[in-house]
Amino acid sequence: MKNKNTRLLILNGPNLNLIGKRETAIYGNVSLNDYLNQLKTNYSSILIDYQQFNLEGELIQAIHQANNTYDGIILNPGAYAHTSIALRDAIKAIDIPTVEVHISNVFQRESFRKHSYISDVCKGCIIGFGLQGYRLAVESFIYDKDCFF
Amino acid sequence: MKNKNTRLLILNGPNLNLIGKRETAIYGNVSLNDYLNQLKTNYSSILIDYQQFNLEGELIQAIHQANNTYDGIILNPGAYAHTSIALRDAIKAIDIPTVEVHISNVFQRESFRKHSYISDVCKGCIIGFGLQGYRLAVESFIYDKDCFF
Amino acid sequence: MKNKNTRLLILNGPNLNLIGKRETAIYGNVSLNDYLNQLKTNYSSILIDYQQFNLEGELIQAIHQANNTYDGIILNPGAYAHTSIALRDAIKAIDIPTVEVHISNVFQRESFRKHSYISDVCKGCIIGFGLQGYRLAVESFIYDKDCFF
Amino acid sequence: MKNKNTRLLILNGPNLNLIGKRETAIYGNVSLNDYLNQLKTNYSSILIDYQQFNLEGELIQAIHQANNTYDGIILNPGAYAHTSIALRDAIKAIDIPTVEVHISNVFQRESFRKHSYISDVCKGCIIGFGLQGYRLAVESFIYDKDCFF
Amino acid sequence: MKNKNTRLLILNGPNLNLIGKRETAIYGNVSLNDYLNQLKTNYSSILIDYQQFNLEGELIQAIHQANNTYDGIILNPGAYAHTSIALRDAIKAIDIPTVEVHISNVFQRESFRKHSYISDVCKGCIIGFGLQGYRLAVESFIYDKDCFF
Amino acid sequence: MKNKNTRLLILNGPNLNLIGKRETAIYGNVSLNDYLNQLKTNYSSILIDYQQFNLEGELIQAIHQANNTYDGIILNPGAYAHTSIALRDAIKAIDIPTVEVHISNVFQRESFRKHSYISDVCKGCIIGFGLQGYRLAVESFIYDKDCFF
Amino acid sequence: MKNKNTRLLILNGPNLNLIGKRETAIYGNVSLNDYLNQLKTNYSSILIDYQQFNLEGELIQAIHQANNTYDGIILNPGAYAHTSIALRDAIKAIDIPTVEVHISNVFQRESFRKHSYISDVCKGCIIGFGLQGYRLAVESFIYDKDCFF
Amino acid sequence: MKNKNTRLLILNGPNLNLIGKRETAIYGNVSLNDYLNQLKTNYSSILIDYQQFNLEGELIQAIHQANNTYDGIILNPGAYAHTSIALRDAIKAIDIPTVEVHISNVFQRESFRKHSYISDVCKGCIIGFGLQGYRLAVESFIYDKDCFF
Amino acid sequence: MKNKNTRLLILNGPNLNLIGKRETAIYGNVSLNDYLNQLKTNYSSILIDYQQFNLEGELIQAIHQANNTYDGIILNPGAYAHTSIALRDAIKAIDIPTVEVHISNVFQRESFRKHSYISDVCKGCIIGFGLQGYRLAVESFIYDKDCFF
Amino acid sequence: MKNKNTRLLILNGPNLNLIGKRETAIYGNVSLNDYLNQLKTNYSSILIDYQQFNLEGELIQAIHQANNTYDGIILNPGAYAHTSIALRDAIKAIDIPTVEVHISNVFQRESFRKHSYISDVCKGCIIGFGLQGYRLAVESFIYDKDCFF
Amino acid sequence: MKNKNTRLLILNGPNLNLIGKRETAIYGNVSLNDYLNQLKTNYSSILIDYQQFNLEGELIQAIHQANNTYDGIILNPGAYAHTSIALRDAIKAIDIPTVEVHISNVFQRESFRKHSYISDVCKGCIIGFGLQGYRLAVESFIYDKDCFF
Amino acid sequence: MKNKNTRLLILNGPNLNLIGKRETAIYGNVSLNDYLNQLKTNYSSILIDYQQFNLEGELIQAIHQANNTYDGIILNPGAYAHTSIALRDAIKAIDIPTVEVHISNVFQRESFRKHSYISDVCKGCIIGFGLQGYRLAVESFIYDKDCFF
Repeated sequence: MKNKNTRLLILNGPNLNLIGKRETAIYGNVSLNDYLNQLKTNYSSILIDYQQFNLEGELIQAIHQANNTYDGIILNPGAYAHTSIALRDAIKAIDIPTVEVHISNVFQRESFRKHSYISDVCKGCIIGFGLQGYRLAVESFIYDKDCFF
Repeated sequence: MKNKNTRLLILNGPNLNLIGKRETAIYGNVSLNDYLNQLKTNYSSILIDYQQFNLEGELIQAIHQANNTYDGIILNPGAYAHTSIALRDAIKAIDIPTVEVHISNVFQRESFRKHSYISDVCKGCIIGFGLQGYRLAVESFIYDKDCFF
Repeated sequence: MKNKNTRLLILNGPNLNLIGKRETAIYGNVSLNDYLNQLKTNYSSILIDYQQFNLEGELIQAIHQANNTYDGIILNPGAYAHTSIALRDAIKAIDIPTVEVHISNVFQRESFRKHSYISDVCKGCIIGFGLQGYRLAVESFIYDKDCFF
Repeated sequence: MKNKNTRLLILNGPNLNLIGKRETAIYGNVSLNDYLNQLKTNYSSILIDYQQFNLEGELIQAIHQANNTYDGIILNPGAYAHTSIALRDAIKAIDIPTVEVHISNVFQRESFRKHSYISDVCKGCIIGFGLQGYRLAVESFIYDKDCFF
Repeated sequence: MKNKNTRLLILNGPNLNLIGKRETAIYGNVSLNDYLNQLKTNYSSILIDYQQFNLEGELIQAIHQANNTYDGIILNPGAYAHTSIALRDAIKAIDIPTVEVHISNVFQRESFRKHSYISDVCKGCIIGFGLQGYRLAVESFIYDKDCFF
Repeated sequence: MKNKNTRLLILNGPNLNLIGKRETAIYGNVSLNDYLNQLKTNYSSILIDYQQFNLEGELIQAIHQANNTYDGIILNPGAYAHTSIALRDAIKAIDIPTVEVHISNVFQRESFRKHSYISDVCKGCIIGFGLQGYRLAVESFIYDKDCFF
Repeated sequence: MKNKNTRLLILNGPNLNLIGKRETAIYGNVSLNDYLNQLKTNYSSILIDYQQFNLEGELIQAIHQANNTYDGIILNPGAYAHTSIALRDAIKAIDIPTVEVHISNVFQRESFRKHSYISDVCKGCIIGFGLQGYRLAVESFIYDKDCFF
Repeated sequence: MKNKNTRLLILNGPNLNLIGKRETAIYGNVSLNDYLNQLKTNYSSILIDYQQFNLEGELIQAIHQANNTYDGIILNPGAYAHTSIALRDAIKAIDIPTVEVHISNVFQRESFRKHSYISDVCKGCIIGFGLQGYRLAVESFIYDKDCFF
Repeated sequence: MKNKNTRLLILNGPNLNLIGKRETAIYGNVSLNDYLNQLKTNYSSILIDYQQFNLEGELIQAIHQANNTYDGIILNPGAYAHTSIALRDAIKAIDIPTVEVHISNVFQRESFRKHSYISDVCKGCIIGFGLQGYRLAVESFIYDKDCFF
Repeated sequence: MKNKNTRLLILNGPNLNLIGKRETAIYGNVSLNDYLNQLKTNYSSILIDYQQFNLEGELIQAIHQANNTYDGIILNPGAYAHTSIALRDAIKAIDIPTVEVHISNVFQRESFRKHSYISDVCKGCIIGFGLQGYRLAVESFIYDKDCFF
Repeated sequence: MKNKNTRLLILNGPNLNLIGKRETAIYGNVSLNDYLNQLKTNYSSILIDYQQFNLEGELIQAIHQANNTYDGIILNPGAYAHTSIALRDAIKAIDIPTVEVHISNVFQRESFRKHSYISDVCKGCIIGFGLQGYRLAVESFIYDKDCFF
Repeated sequence: MKNKNTRLLILNGPNLNLIGKRETAIYGNVSLNDYLNQLKTNYSSILIDYQQFNLEGELIQAIHQANNTYDGIILNPGAYAHTSIALRDAIKAIDIPTVEVHISNVFQRESFRKHSYISDVCKGCIIGFGLQGYRLAVESFIYDKDCFF
């Protein structure tokens, strides 16, 4: 039995407006819009919103604002995972849990992508599953404590 | 629509025979047996087997043997993630995909747990979701390419 | 005897809009507004303005603009202290002195907070005194060379 | 014989709105406007546009948009060269080549300026020639493959 | 309203007997005696004592003894900040708070001056304000919790 | 007055089956059997058992099992001290205290022997006293809280 | 003139049971059995035995036992070369010489394969010659001091 | 049978005059005087002297002088273990053996306490057993070579 | 208007005698002779000489001698950029400016090519433009201060 | 069956003209001339030439020239293995394979000898077998693909 | 022609009171008194005084006092060379030159002796010549600028 | 009494042919020829020869040849001190002692000049005394063991 009425914000960081358009070897070539539409259809009992920002500070503000509106954040920080302590501070400052998602397996790429400033302030990390990572993150929020899932 | 007849091996590494018994602050106190039984019940269309080894070499051999028997491995390597290049070589040598699972958020613990020798040879990583990580890993294998999930 | 007519800009960086609201164990729970009001009252001969930005680039622009308007900047760069060379360049490019303030004792926190890209281009650093750090920074600007203070 | 109708975007990063105004020991004191005007005059067969942003995310967006409009980008990333993986990702995501320019010889300055996150995803780097670096970058784009130059 | 009857010990480390006499480019050329006299005059409601030791162990002993006599220590550890764990242990072992003061901006000097073994066991740090640093440290102790200052 | 009926397990790691036989310059040439017999004779009120394993996983299992049987473990992990996080996890997972013993002074040998993954999860460490280290470890367990020893 | 009656043990480490079957780009696709048979035929005056273990501790024990039975060990430690100090201790503890062999050129692979814990306690190293490395190692043992070879 | 007439010097370093008085969470709250008295009583056949110095140079001189007077030194160097090469030189320069003792388990504390400049010039190290460490060190000196202990 | 009568020495380091012949994936396959001839033709008002040395010391001597003969050096140091401090000293010892050129984008290659011992003693660096780098370096010397170029 | 008419160049680097004369503890005391003569006699079907250079650049040139004359190079680079990227570039630039030989076991010597700039661009490495290393390298070239050896 | 009336202070650091008595393999076994007497005899036109301190702070004070009394200091800092920034500050704070002397070749000993905090604030360094180093340091002060020596 | 008939070779490395001509701020502006002539005059009982090479390999060969001709080498390796292991090997391979001399205080310059590959294989080091360093090195060779000097 799944939780009802869960409200989730999928929040994407810099360059992720290009998902499905560029560097398809790394990020795949599925249209993100199509993907999100199907995701919402399949998990119709959950409210799923989507935002994307290229600016570090706007991501921070979106996290601040999500605190009063959502039950959790599914955050793909893109490259800011590796450089932004300010993003970390924003995640740590709010009450709702954040799940970190990376589309590509960052451990297979440049060495500077191996460290994330936010992993240890997130509830958990889902890395390398392509767009499906967003679905798995949604799944992680509908866990029912009484019966496990 | 989910894939049918998927055969998965959940493979646990050293000290994970103690799940639910010891260090419950880190690993939780749910009985792994109960968890696995419910997992099998909920995903009844999938074959889910379970093995646990404290010996690095036995894990390696289990991976070799899984290659002919399963469609994928869900591997919680425990501490060997951080020290075993031999385990990495075993994963790299087989044809079926491996998903790395850690029950605890390893990034919140000692610094030597931040590096895994196997993450970049796995399909993906699911970290910090407690026992639920195993369920999410199972979910990651039932992705249907035609309709996303 | 204190200098008269000193104009100071207190400039706060990312997440510091949350002072007194969140993570009170680290940042305290005094309302920043109340604090600033009392500060202005107690130092009524000084012009004290206040700005806060979550965006690195907006902080940079505020520093550029302060150059023509204020006698000094009291800058709490938040997490950008540890990651922003661009902020450093802005401070170095202006003629008025900047004092770096951190509310918490950054040396007691994560190791990546031990390095600041801006400390050596600032006039001085005041670290760990809570909100009082802003008052001490104001004091540092009213130093009278003739009689020491 | 030079290529005709080449369209180039000169894109400057944080604090470079101050070129010719501040820190002239490092950046020189020539007016950038005067320089750009003469550059356009001398290379009249080429379209040369100019943009400057202090915000990392706005630089990223400018790079995204340039992809459909220009034949190449001449990018002086300023301090973001040393801190922004997101900028790197933007450069890597587009189809047109980028040339990295630094006005000062970054290797003569602080050690943290010796590493650039973007050099290896650029076509080439021109470092230390003052404003003339922009002209050399323009020259690099008018190379004619048939006759070398 | 300021606290009354506060007793403070200003404690200086090695080579600081030379303040105002040598290396005036770094430490200034004001007579420390004159400075302290004026400080005592200006803060006449506070007891301010002064000690200086070139020997690490004598600093440690002075800290032990201050524990029963003063309400706080204003410590300029000089070079021992960077090399003495024993000094750290002394500070940590007493009940009264210590404020770390450096006359020069240590972050502008040799790289080995960037790390202090005592900063994180002090209440706060005041760095780079010349002799005025001692006055700011005194100010930090007269904070009145009821009205901020 | 010594504690009665204490049950201790002396557990030796890889290559320590060779004690007294090989590399006598490092490990001495006393027969371990003779040593253990005399140890048992001299501490006859204590139960002292002995196990040795060359396999990391078998050491882990022995530690798991000791938890229900002994009051403490005297562990000479041999080279696994420097490479096995799994061994550390096993020690941390049990309730009884472990004392780490090294026959040779590991600090006089190769630099990679200077770090032990288990020292900080053990009650204490006894290093460099030859076989006598085992006796000192036994002594450490017979400490009587009422009279010190 | 070659030495007669030399007895050699070829000892292979983890995953090397897969030689010729998997990752043929790295390890080649020749059957190890065929190779060993031809090796024995060509060097018929020498006793050549072969063992393979995936378990670190079993390799250690095989080395202990070889000490009384063989004139030398040809050891391909696989990944344990890079992680096992216990293996090093075993090699150092025996009287007969060990030659380290790696099939692939480990210096062309991941950086963690560049360091071997055993190279400096071996007689010599033969790296990168494919299966032929075993033959070269055999050759290294049949060196005749009187006439060089 | 124990050695007779052994003369031992227990030598304590900086801040250890505070044992039992301060930071009792780390160093315990037993009176050192009481402890030493009982130690002397229990080991009445041995001469046990005690000295404590906060000054590095005085510790060095005490070690020089002990060379002609005692059969061994039990040295708790406190923080100087981690910073004093001069102390190391003193220990290396004398003929009698030194045993290093730390009351707390230094491996559980700040990372800079993990390295000791003196461990490898001492006979052995006893770490983490509280005040009992001194007793174990005394025990280590009464080892009788003929019968082990 | 370009400077007249400029005399330039193009100086190439080790292995660059092979340009156009080997490793064409990295260095291109244009004949250097053809390139230089066309370069001289196109910049006929400038004296352009060419030398190549495989020996570090001969490069040093060529730099010494160029000091009296040329107005500038265009130096492609090849691998010596990364290893030769002596080359750096030679460049620093002469009065005429040196421009560093690399044909390939060294930042895309092995990590040890990321550091150059000579960049900060050169006037500027031109990296990654193939043979065209030499032309851009020539251009950098014909800059006319009066009209920019 | 061995390959016929193979032409090999044994190429020695700096100080190796002293083989057999100096530092015999490291390099042995066999005359290299005698060794080479016997080597040629024993492998009479192969052309074996020998060159030695103390100058890095001359080694590079010898490698360039060998490309047209030999089927392979047996290179003992001596100390240049650890410092010469130019040597690496030369090896990489030619078509024939190079085998790296070190007479001594470099892993037993100073730590800076543990890294070779050329190992990963060589076919393979033979380390620590004394002069016999040259013979093993010759053997490595006479491998017959049809019958293994 | 030598300078007349030069006044020099030979200042020795910790453990150097043991010269000629202990660790003669490192420091030689010549009596320092005898050496100094002969030195004074041979350089009778120079005033040579000698002091030795085991305490860091006393060395610092001796340096302060030497400033008014001597023309130069010949300082053998012993182990404090490697650990004392306070000593460095003292040397930098005085007007007369200091020459650093080490009896042993510190580069042949433990790696932590390779770095000296004082070398770059000294006039020069004389290392490894045994007691003769003091004589060479004396010689360095009697250099006559008119005739070189 | 000085030794008679000592034969010394002063050997200078790369760029030192420019002594007195270039970079006089670092190396002084005294003519080396004048200096050497006066040195020979003042030490007329000693044979002093002089050689300078810019090529690393020629320095190596000069060291080889000096072995049969001189009693000692006074070597100023210039920049090769920091990069040449081959030079180290040459020094180690000969029987006569080498003294390392640097004209400038290398510890005051770039950090890469702080490490010398040859210091620990030399008899001693004389650093920072300008040209006088050569004279001090000559002095170091005329030490008479019977009377110290």
